[in-house]
Amino acid sequence: MSVFHVAEVVDALQEVRQQWRERQRRALEPGGRDLPAREALAEVVETLKGVLFPMRLGPPDLRQESENFYVGHALDAALHALLAQARLELRYKARHAETDHGKIDAHALAAVRAFSARLPAIRSLLDSDVLAAFNGDPAAGSVDEVLLCYPGVLAMIHHRLAHELYRLGLPLLARIISELAHAATGIDIHPGAQIGSAFFIDHGTGVVIGETAIIGERVRVYQAVTLGAKRFPRDAAGNVEKGLPRHPIVEDDVVIYAGATILGRVTLGRGAVIGGNVWLTEDVPAGAHITQAISRHEVRAPAGARGAAATAAPDAIAAGAAR
Amino acid sequence: MSVFHVAEVVDALQEVRQQWRERQRRALEPGGRDLPAREALAEVVETLKGVLFPMRLGPPDLRQESENFYVGHALDAALHALLAQARLELRYKARHAETDHGKIDAHALAAVRAFSARLPAIRSLLDSDVLAAFNGDPAAGSVDEVLLCYPGVLAMIHHRLAHELYRLGLPLLARIISELAHAATGIDIHPGAQIGSAFFIDHGTGVVIGETAIIGERVRVYQAVTLGAKRFPRDAAGNVEKGLPRHPIVEDDVVIYAGATILGRVTLGRGAVIGGNVWLTEDVPAGAHITQAISRHEVRAPAGARGAAATAAPDAIAAGAAR
Amino acid sequence: MSVFHVAEVVDALQEVRQQWRERQRRALEPGGRDLPAREALAEVVETLKGVLFPMRLGPPDLRQESENFYVGHALDAALHALLAQARLELRYKARHAETDHGKIDAHALAAVRAFSARLPAIRSLLDSDVLAAFNGDPAAGSVDEVLLCYPGVLAMIHHRLAHELYRLGLPLLARIISELAHAATGIDIHPGAQIGSAFFIDHGTGVVIGETAIIGERVRVYQAVTLGAKRFPRDAAGNVEKGLPRHPIVEDDVVIYAGATILGRVTLGRGAVIGGNVWLTEDVPAGAHITQAISRHEVRAPAGARGAAATAAPDAIAAGAAR
Amino acid sequence: MSVFHVAEVVDALQEVRQQWRERQRRALEPGGRDLPAREALAEVVETLKGVLFPMRLGPPDLRQESENFYVGHALDAALHALLAQARLELRYKARHAETDHGKIDAHALAAVRAFSARLPAIRSLLDSDVLAAFNGDPAAGSVDEVLLCYPGVLAMIHHRLAHELYRLGLPLLARIISELAHAATGIDIHPGAQIGSAFFIDHGTGVVIGETAIIGERVRVYQAVTLGAKRFPRDAAGNVEKGLPRHPIVEDDVVIYAGATILGRVTLGRGAVIGGNVWLTEDVPAGAHITQAISRHEVRAPAGARGAAATAAPDAIAAGAAR
Amino acid sequence: MSVFHVAEVVDALQEVRQQWRERQRRALEPGGRDLPAREALAEVVETLKGVLFPMRLGPPDLRQESENFYVGHALDAALHALLAQARLELRYKARHAETDHGKIDAHALAAVRAFSARLPAIRSLLDSDVLAAFNGDPAAGSVDEVLLCYPGVLAMIHHRLAHELYRLGLPLLARIISELAHAATGIDIHPGAQIGSAFFIDHGTGVVIGETAIIGERVRVYQAVTLGAKRFPRDAAGNVEKGLPRHPIVEDDVVIYAGATILGRVTLGRGAVIGGNVWLTEDVPAGAHITQAISRHEVRAPAGARGAAATAAPDAIAAGAAR
Amino acid sequence: MSVFHVAEVVDALQEVRQQWRERQRRALEPGGRDLPAREALAEVVETLKGVLFPMRLGPPDLRQESENFYVGHALDAALHALLAQARLELRYKARHAETDHGKIDAHALAAVRAFSARLPAIRSLLDSDVLAAFNGDPAAGSVDEVLLCYPGVLAMIHHRLAHELYRLGLPLLARIISELAHAATGIDIHPGAQIGSAFFIDHGTGVVIGETAIIGERVRVYQAVTLGAKRFPRDAAGNVEKGLPRHPIVEDDVVIYAGATILGRVTLGRGAVIGGNVWLTEDVPAGAHITQAISRHEVRAPAGARGAAATAAPDAIAAGAAR
Repeated sequence: MSVFHVAEVVDALQEVRQQWRERQRRALEPGGRDLPAREALAEVVETLKGVLFPMRLGPPDLRQESENFYVGHALDAALHALLAQARLELRYKARHAETDHGKIDAHALAAVRAFSARLPAIRSLLDSDVLAAFNGDPAAGSVDEVLLCYPGVLAMIHHRLAHELYRLGLPLLARIISELAHAATGIDIHPGAQIGSAFFIDHGTGVVIGETAIIGERVRVYQAVTLGAKRFPRDAAGNVEKGLPRHPIVEDDVVIYAGATILGRVTLGRGAVIGGNVWLTEDVPAGAHITQAISRHEVRAPAGARGAAATAAPDAIAAGAAR
Repeated sequence: MSVFHVAEVVDALQEVRQQWRERQRRALEPGGRDLPAREALAEVVETLKGVLFPMRLGPPDLRQESENFYVGHALDAALHALLAQARLELRYKARHAETDHGKIDAHALAAVRAFSARLPAIRSLLDSDVLAAFNGDPAAGSVDEVLLCYPGVLAMIHHRLAHELYRLGLPLLARIISELAHAATGIDIHPGAQIGSAFFIDHGTGVVIGETAIIGERVRVYQAVTLGAKRFPRDAAGNVEKGLPRHPIVEDDVVIYAGATILGRVTLGRGAVIGGNVWLTEDVPAGAHITQAISRHEVRAPAGARGAAATAAPDAIAAGAAR
Repeated sequence: MSVFHVAEVVDALQEVRQQWRERQRRALEPGGRDLPAREALAEVVETLKGVLFPMRLGPPDLRQESENFYVGHALDAALHALLAQARLELRYKARHAETDHGKIDAHALAAVRAFSARLPAIRSLLDSDVLAAFNGDPAAGSVDEVLLCYPGVLAMIHHRLAHELYRLGLPLLARIISELAHAATGIDIHPGAQIGSAFFIDHGTGVVIGETAIIGERVRVYQAVTLGAKRFPRDAAGNVEKGLPRHPIVEDDVVIYAGATILGRVTLGRGAVIGGNVWLTEDVPAGAHITQAISRHEVRAPAGARGAAATAAPDAIAAGAAR
Repeated sequence: MSVFHVAEVVDALQEVRQQWRERQRRALEPGGRDLPAREALAEVVETLKGVLFPMRLGPPDLRQESENFYVGHALDAALHALLAQARLELRYKARHAETDHGKIDAHALAAVRAFSARLPAIRSLLDSDVLAAFNGDPAAGSVDEVLLCYPGVLAMIHHRLAHELYRLGLPLLARIISELAHAATGIDIHPGAQIGSAFFIDHGTGVVIGETAIIGERVRVYQAVTLGAKRFPRDAAGNVEKGLPRHPIVEDDVVIYAGATILGRVTLGRGAVIGGNVWLTEDVPAGAHITQAISRHEVRAPAGARGAAATAAPDAIAAGAAR
Repeated sequence: MSVFHVAEVVDALQEVRQQWRERQRRALEPGGRDLPAREALAEVVETLKGVLFPMRLGPPDLRQESENFYVGHALDAALHALLAQARLELRYKARHAETDHGKIDAHALAAVRAFSARLPAIRSLLDSDVLAAFNGDPAAGSVDEVLLCYPGVLAMIHHRLAHELYRLGLPLLARIISELAHAATGIDIHPGAQIGSAFFIDHGTGVVIGETAIIGERVRVYQAVTLGAKRFPRDAAGNVEKGLPRHPIVEDDVVIYAGATILGRVTLGRGAVIGGNVWLTEDVPAGAHITQAISRHEVRAPAGARGAAATAAPDAIAAGAAR
Repeated sequence: MSVFHVAEVVDALQEVRQQWRERQRRALEPGGRDLPAREALAEVVETLKGVLFPMRLGPPDLRQESENFYVGHALDAALHALLAQARLELRYKARHAETDHGKIDAHALAAVRAFSARLPAIRSLLDSDVLAAFNGDPAAGSVDEVLLCYPGVLAMIHHRLAHELYRLGLPLLARIISELAHAATGIDIHPGAQIGSAFFIDHGTGVVIGETAIIGERVRVYQAVTLGAKRFPRDAAGNVEKGLPRHPIVEDDVVIYAGATILGRVTLGRGAVIGGNVWLTEDVPAGAHITQAISRHEVRAPAGARGAAATAAPDAIAAGAAR
């Protein structure tokens, strides 16, 4: 007999699973896994990085003169792998309905085709993000360094791919791809967020951007910035209403410094600058500079000296950037 | 001769190691490694995930009708691997004492046995966490999506396993398991923290929960929330006193929004709601809603307009959630 | 024909690449990759960890009596691999100049040699960091637990190696090594930062330390602390001036609690203590204790009770540490 | 342009493939691979070895008390993987016919089910083979050594599995499994051969056993023995007739020493012993001992001595075994 | 101190290496490995198999409509990897001479270029080999089965690639590729052998074909056939003369059955058939059928019966084929 | 329920295992695997190859100036891994006896220590084998080519290591190591065989050398040579007597050509030459040349010509070597 009473634990675990499945009204019919797989999508994204930037993120032994061969082969493989995952998501979504598998598969095919056609545009957008990072960070040595090193750029590669899938009706695939970037960078962008070109996230850890956020062009944000919801509107029955716009609109050329929190469907006007740690739940006019009004702190002097409360007028816009 | 003077560097490194070992009063007798291994524990946890959720986190080719076979085999393997690590921790802890290896090994065996018996209860708790996330997040499409994607759920799987080991006298194994989740999610929960069922962490990056924190049922926290200590009490000799309760008690149904910091052995009463970025070092009565009293900021208008200091009464509870 | 019109997408992607390369004035001559590789450096660092701490971070089957053999072999391999990457960085930097490859390679060799000679000193510094963590954290069970588990220690291993490379004229290699730690720990230390011995980062997620920061000995910082720049000075032409000192100087024995933000070339005097969430843009005298002057928040009482605005005098230094 | 004129070679290779496909009348419609995969079958067999001999050929960390869990899980996985390959073979075979996929899949399922039911009998047969080797080889230290080391036993594991698949109408899967053993051992047994229990092949390199061979119980053969066909009978049209019995029948308790060649549908009677290097194309009565009639060789003496042709009457049965 | 006296063994091994190097007159200057690597060539050949037969031996997820992309990318990678190995061989060969590295590299490049141009012709030849196996073996179910399963075909893929390299002045690379096939199949073909189209080796284990052998079209050989040298001619000084023709010439349509040994520069005339186990050191006229003249063996009857020496006139051509 | 009735098959397999264990009188007590592992020994041998020939068979990035570091580290790791396997063999052998584990482990340690001390001598012997191959094969381009390519050399590396273990009382480890070479080369040398220096096996497939064979210096053998036993002597009780000398003695400078079979405790005198395919069961005087006395074969002329039986006096010594 097992020293660990394995058989008993196995039975007990089965019972808990049973309860869960009953509560979830899961069919108990035999069969294999029916959900998209994180590992499979991780590989798809890894391949698509090479498709988008063959000489930088593709296989190390690739040569420029043969880029197209590689891109073609890798793209074809990635799209077919993605198609398989898309089918899984769509079939899973339709699992309670009387649905025609043929229709679902046609939907999946159409979605992946449309996705494929968007890749050149995605590359263009990512080029603009890379340039924005290069221009926005005095410490950046070259555009290649930016592409290789910056977590913000990595997060945007994932986001721009995920957002396309979200738009095409594959929100679960999109979400998995976003969370892969979240795990790698600490940057959490919901795949629904709409983000214009030349977006730059510096440092990035702790950034959170919500599903209905709309971000213009040439916007810059620093670590720990939240573009969140203020509250979840509920309908008459008390249920959270889904899909309502509830996150900020950030117009072109806005800069948001580290730790700032912007909540609700407010609008930050074109060119506004939001100081570090600012907490905002209202609109900001174009061109305005917002800072914490008071940075009071109490100084207890060292032994023998006199403590004093001081109100420091903060220095205009305190960047909070560590470059 | 080596271009890098390797032999000299080797000697110098040996000398530094020697100094360290002497200062640490390490025995210099030969032998192999005597500490638990991060990689081994990572594999144990990976297997236990499949044991707890076979059709979601187990091997991709598993089929429902054969779950128990897989669960039994994987569980047995994981428990024996865990036992080996438990022995290492206990022997290491007893390395300066005259201790009977037989006794230590019996202790390890008893601990892993008790751990094994707790797995069904852990699965139940995790089911409640998954449901809490599904119900708490309007963007969640299904409980399966929650299990696959949410970093908060991943952190709780690690925590609930680690906490059990912590309770059973294996704090180092517990800590390693917690840090594995910390690295993957940015969520740092000390394995000592006691957390009730249906706990939901949204976004999660930057959450820190201390060793003696006690959290009730159906509690929800958002990114960058700290449940920390205010100060470390010291005894007469000036040494930090260990093990004293020094982190918050959070009662049932409390919600803590993003960036809030709660420090010290304070109690947040049942159903309290703590607004984003609030800094708290005192008790909060049941049902209370705490918000930043003043969200002042200074607006410098664009050229030609008039600057104005505005005091914005923040909108009740600003969620800070990005969903 | 491909269901995904792969050939057309390949052509469109080529065109976007072409545009990018033209805008970047890239030579279009054939050839392989010419940049340092993240994977290669990850392996170098992994090996160097074993070189520095053979019995803790080296191969699991290593035995103390044979440490030197391992250290010698692993060091030699790591240095040659590093040399290859160093050449890539230096050649890349010189790609637009008429440069003698021989000279570049000699430079690379000299740099790696100097790096190698610094390893014993780096090990000493890391020993002091480990001890500082052990002494600073009441929850730490042993120095070995600290080395195995603490993300702050991992970040410092990377930083101390990266900083050496930065000083030796290899900033890109240094940056890649730093970002590897950033991804694993959420701690973002620019390789240019100068950090004294016995530095301790607790929890760590969200810590950002800028390029020109100077940190003394025995300094302690907690999660989400930023040592950043206040603004980027620009020259007459409006270009950001590079390399100017723009981050804080932190003198010996300073403690900075969680979430504090220190911006600009300010000096925190020896022994100063900065409270949690403090926002600072000015000098602090030696020995001073800085706390948020006001921790006002508004309490809305539960139904039937009376709401009250309360001003809580915060408890001196609120640690924000979760231990 | 590529230094290797890759594009031109690609075109030329396409043309050759085109010619081949036309000559083979292959449909040129797009699609993925449609043949069973050697790698997949290698994995199936690897798993089945563990299913048959869990404590010897299963995972190294398996424990006897949990064998059944492992066997159940591994068996289920292996059978589903085998089912997928069986479908591929049957669909491929039917590729030119108007065939109902449902029927094919039902056939595949039935075959794998029958295969599964035969596994206990296969294990019994293999046990008899192991014992035969142990008893037949004075050098064998234990039955476990035989199972671990003897190429003849490895070949029989493959053969007994492959033969079952061959019987069930899956000759291509069977053949691939046989060739995997051939590559590993140099023993080439056609999956069609019928082999009784307690079969022992010593050394084994170069053994060849044909498709219609029938071998009784307790038969022993040594390296380089061929049980082959003498000629291929042709029908009136001059085509080779398939499936006709054309290989030897070897009755119970026969021994065939190294290098002997037995060709055609001859019968070796019960208990016959065939000497090394004998070339046989006719029946042998039960109990007979066959040896090379003449082992003449010419001895050229060393310088100064006298050469002599000698006829050596060979020593009854020369074993040729190296044990 | 090490329980195994490792340091002493290390010293003793160094001394033996030293002696070897001195005897071999090796330079003792530091440096890395300078020989082609078996692993690298194994990977090149693996890739080239996919280049030659993309839908059969290429990546499992390849689709016909994207073959050219894959072929182009894989070919480019394989040729550059081969070029690196070619440089190693040529530099190694020239290690004692005052040789210009530029010249050597140009030679390597030219050789690999020529090799590349030959690939379509090699594919054609291999197609003829596959067809020959399919036609020659009644048990073969399809040309695809032949390509997937037959060791003889695997050996010919390696040989036809290796022979090209041999011709292009890269005999060491060629030899390594041949030995990879030898290890996998037991078929040992020297890369120098010239082999016409539609060559079929059945079973194959133990086949040996020498360097100067010349084989015509549509030749068939069975297992354990040797086409060897009779003796090594020596020059006046007693040294073996290299490169002299010393292996058989086998004209078109010859069949050689299992175990036959043909030695020396003899010619087997067009259409000749050599019986199993025949030992031949002289020419054979076209169309002749050679068999062992006498297949005498002695039968010792079972107890009570009468022994009899029998001369069996062997049945014309005894195939020795096990199909 | 499982489509494959897995549970029933699991039960049936358990029953068969049960029967086997009962027949084998196996204890049925729980526990893990107790036999040496093929994979572990494969890794040990792989490492020892690098220890013996660091710049040729060691890690590809090794450099000559750091050989000793590598050799020391790899040797230490390999010896400890071997020690673990040696313990397993000795404990397994003693499993029925009342044996002191301490004694067994001491035996294992002593054996591995003695093995370690023999490694320099083994390297010397292998150097002589490499030289013998280089001198004996006109096609060999360099000693390095021989070491990299020749299966005979690979077999001897395994043999010389295995023979040492055999001598030290670890026959099972020895046998596993021999069979690893057998699988890779088709050369089957029993680890008990005693083989002098400068031994050369050409081509090698099918060579079999028995346990009590004794081979002198500078001996050369070709493919398919057997040095076997003629019969197994039995004692009064009819049991095979183990350990009696039963294989040939081959004195210095003997050459044995392809396919020759030498059986029994005969002696081939110094300098004897045994022709291809010769079958020998008696002593051969020093310096003698043995050839097949008659190479008769029957030639059936092509249609219209006259058949003729010819007796070909074979050409002295027919080498059978394919070089």
